[in-house]
Amino acid sequence: MSTTTTPTATIEKWGMFETEFTGPATGNPYLDVSFDAIFRLKEREVRVPGFYDGAGVYRLRFMPETTGEWQFETRSETPELNGHRGALDVVAPTGTNKGPVRVKNQFHFAYADGSPFLSFGTTCYAWTHQPLDEQAKTLQTLAKTGFNKIRMGVFPKDYPYNVNEPLHDIYHVVDGKRDFDQPNYEAFRHFDTQVAALRDMGIEADLILFHPYDRWGYCDMDEAQDYRYVAYLAARYGGFRNVWWALANEYDFLIDTKPMERWDRFFQILEEEDPARHLKSIHNGAADANYDHRKPWVTHTCIQNWDVKRTQEWRDTWGKPVINDEPEYEGDIIQCWGNITAQELVHRFWTTMMRGGYAGHGETYSHPDDLIWWAKGGVLHGEAWKRLKFMRAVLEEDVRGGLEPLGPQAQWPWHRVSGAQDGDVRYIYLGEHQPVIWTLGLPEEDGDYELDLIDTWEMSVTPLAKQTAPQNHPVRHGEIIRPRKPDAAFGVALPRKPGLCIRCRRKA
Amino acid sequence: MSTTTTPTATIEKWGMFETEFTGPATGNPYLDVSFDAIFRLKEREVRVPGFYDGAGVYRLRFMPETTGEWQFETRSETPELNGHRGALDVVAPTGTNKGPVRVKNQFHFAYADGSPFLSFGTTCYAWTHQPLDEQAKTLQTLAKTGFNKIRMGVFPKDYPYNVNEPLHDIYHVVDGKRDFDQPNYEAFRHFDTQVAALRDMGIEADLILFHPYDRWGYCDMDEAQDYRYVAYLAARYGGFRNVWWALANEYDFLIDTKPMERWDRFFQILEEEDPARHLKSIHNGAADANYDHRKPWVTHTCIQNWDVKRTQEWRDTWGKPVINDEPEYEGDIIQCWGNITAQELVHRFWTTMMRGGYAGHGETYSHPDDLIWWAKGGVLHGEAWKRLKFMRAVLEEDVRGGLEPLGPQAQWPWHRVSGAQDGDVRYIYLGEHQPVIWTLGLPEEDGDYELDLIDTWEMSVTPLAKQTAPQNHPVRHGEIIRPRKPDAAFGVALPRKPGLCIRCRRKA
Repeated sequence: MSTTTTPTATIEKWGMFETEFTGPATGNPYLDVSFDAIFRLKEREVRVPGFYDGAGVYRLRFMPETTGEWQFETRSETPELNGHRGALDVVAPTGTNKGPVRVKNQFHFAYADGSPFLSFGTTCYAWTHQPLDEQAKTLQTLAKTGFNKIRMGVFPKDYPYNVNEPLHDIYHVVDGKRDFDQPNYEAFRHFDTQVAALRDMGIEADLILFHPYDRWGYCDMDEAQDYRYVAYLAARYGGFRNVWWALANEYDFLIDTKPMERWDRFFQILEEEDPARHLKSIHNGAADANYDHRKPWVTHTCIQNWDVKRTQEWRDTWGKPVINDEPEYEGDIIQCWGNITAQELVHRFWTTMMRGGYAGHGETYSHPDDLIWWAKGGVLHGEAWKRLKFMRAVLEEDVRGGLEPLGPQAQWPWHRVSGAQDGDVRYIYLGEHQPVIWTLGLPEEDGDYELDLIDTWEMSVTPLAKQTAPQNHPVRHGEIIRPRKPDAAFGVALPRKPGLCIRCRRKA
Repeated sequence: MSTTTTPTATIEKWGMFETEFTGPATGNPYLDVSFDAIFRLKEREVRVPGFYDGAGVYRLRFMPETTGEWQFETRSETPELNGHRGALDVVAPTGTNKGPVRVKNQFHFAYADGSPFLSFGTTCYAWTHQPLDEQAKTLQTLAKTGFNKIRMGVFPKDYPYNVNEPLHDIYHVVDGKRDFDQPNYEAFRHFDTQVAALRDMGIEADLILFHPYDRWGYCDMDEAQDYRYVAYLAARYGGFRNVWWALANEYDFLIDTKPMERWDRFFQILEEEDPARHLKSIHNGAADANYDHRKPWVTHTCIQNWDVKRTQEWRDTWGKPVINDEPEYEGDIIQCWGNITAQELVHRFWTTMMRGGYAGHGETYSHPDDLIWWAKGGVLHGEAWKRLKFMRAVLEEDVRGGLEPLGPQAQWPWHRVSGAQDGDVRYIYLGEHQPVIWTLGLPEEDGDYELDLIDTWEMSVTPLAKQTAPQNHPVRHGEIIRPRKPDAAFGVALPRKPGLCIRCRRKA
């Protein structure tokens, strides 16, 4: 039993405490050695799993969620890893550190410090597997966009436009074959670097653990190998505040090798091995193959579906926040999930959020060298991302608790147009509708309101003037005349064009 | 008993034979006098109801469906109307007379002579109730469009933008109140004139019998009055080959005064009283309030629903042709069923037809004098109608049996893009998708094909060249590589823009 005591570290709340120990370097420590630590603050205890990082190095990563003086002590059946003690002084967060993102108000998200998180995600499935200069470009590009989440695979991707070999193998190749009992620690260290880079840019890393687009054999790992891999990721990445767990892209296309029970178990392993309790989701391929997102270990519903006016239905069905990560992508490739116009993708974002959900961006313009953002990152060629950055900035001016739809999906007029509110702000997104006057969804009682017109494509916000609400025509059957009250206390006059959103804010 | 024999008339097959008799002019013949005639051709007998037309005039209208020498004899308990005999020599149709439209191939329509009928309808609910010069304008406008069906109400309409008094009351006003036992025959004679005018232009008159937008009391007629009215219409208009029966616009908004059993009975009365068996449908208001269109008396499913990618679902549900008469209208009024862009309406037409259904047009631009096409006719101000005329012309080049969807709604890629075929022609309508290369839905075996690009908005048709189909990426799980056969024998290169349709025709 070792009794080393490391010096007290000072770390921000939601920062990552990391320490390393030396242990056995022979045999297969990945299989044979385990250790964890108990972190204590007063009467509170948190169990944090450690992980092997190759060459006899063992690491422990911990994201503290409470300020104060924490103590920890390692535990292991391997004597060199047992009984190490240490302390950390957890201080208040600084700068852009707002903590991990959690579910808030049932259908929404917030950082742990309470600030709202309006998810504006993008997708670069295999960006960490590209040449390093391409990865640098991806980070530069992300810095100028408004995306605050990125979906990215741990494994590389084998798919059209994705035939290059990855930067690193994820497991060691032994006799020309990957040995899924021997991780390539260099690959994981590189992945750490990029997850940290995203964290420092304020971008959530939505890590995809499994996907079916594989020529290396990752889909055929056996059950024990799968479980060990998931537990390893939990131990290695659970300490990063910006990590989200996406169990799969298109898990249903993997059902032939990984049955449903295994997916459930993956979730449970994350519950057991990730003391930071990061967000957890799973992603369907076929539109009718949703996982049962009501299961307790799923924190939010993750889907891909182009039919975004159904967003309220998905909220109602699963009772959790809805992120529609693939409402089809802006692009021009042959695959029709990846060739809608920029206008249409922007429209689907507004439609989704104005019905209480969140959408995801992707860009798939064909490129002579197959450098396509959706898989490889690099640079953006399209038009949607600029409008989404504008959209996020506009919404973040006012949205605090999350946008709740103004009505059920089936209710007039919300089956046709989209509207949402949060506190004293309301938005009515008209989309393909181009009325020259509007009232529905505006306040029923007059008051001191500020009205603006958001042109979602031109990225402008211009004041609107109140105008008299048109008198509703009475409903008459024969002699019976039923006067109808006006839809709202006032109306607004609008230009005749698509893609407009009315914003109505009550003045303070 | 009268024994008058009228001279033999010569009439085209599917023409309208009309003859009149003099009978009682006192009392209330509408209530008290009935008569019909049996038309005979060899061993065939057809019972044709007659109707009263005011001032002691009784009429009989008959649309013969077989050439040859027909005999008829009237029957009535009223002696002056009983036993009239006559003959008609029914000859082959000429000119544009193709007969009435019937259901063909389960989901489609054809004229009785076998020529295809691709329904391109528009809506002018109350055009026959406007001033005569406006009605003349409506007919002039229709003549330059490509519409071959119009939805129109027998009753006038009370609704926003529809507050003027109708040209004629439908029933006599007695002591300031309409007497629903006394039709205003002048109103019906005028309606006859306009139904005939449409017929002579080759336009189907889709007659709406009831609707809820009423300030005259038509919604509150009692059950017997309702039944008498339906039977009267059957007798009066069954002889016109271009008549369709639309039991209601938005029957569900009338359920408070007319229960479901009454709607069933209306259908049955038409079955009993219309020997020409014209097409019969009924129209919902709320999206979830469809009548059970599977009932045997419904010839085709008539709905209003903006969600046009669900067209195959509606076909599957009801098993009959689907006409989506209100996939929202081009316009800019406050009501959001009437303010989509022209582009969107054209898109919805193509999407609907490329999934095996038919769509309906309407135009609702606000106008200083409330002269809006959708209700009053007059002139068109929009852009969709031109594209729909082009669309009809393009499709009529090739479509014979009807467009059948290339796949079920849920199937890749047909949940995203729309495709249909008929015999040797296929269309793939890409809509909001803008791939620069395409293969799916193109023939799997090579052959002598003619390929064209239809720009649905620019109204152009330009040749496309075949190009090598991209090799499909194999599906791999680990060591198992499953090569996938190409989607098609060849592909086409496309410009990157929305609203395109690929046409592929096998050369003769």
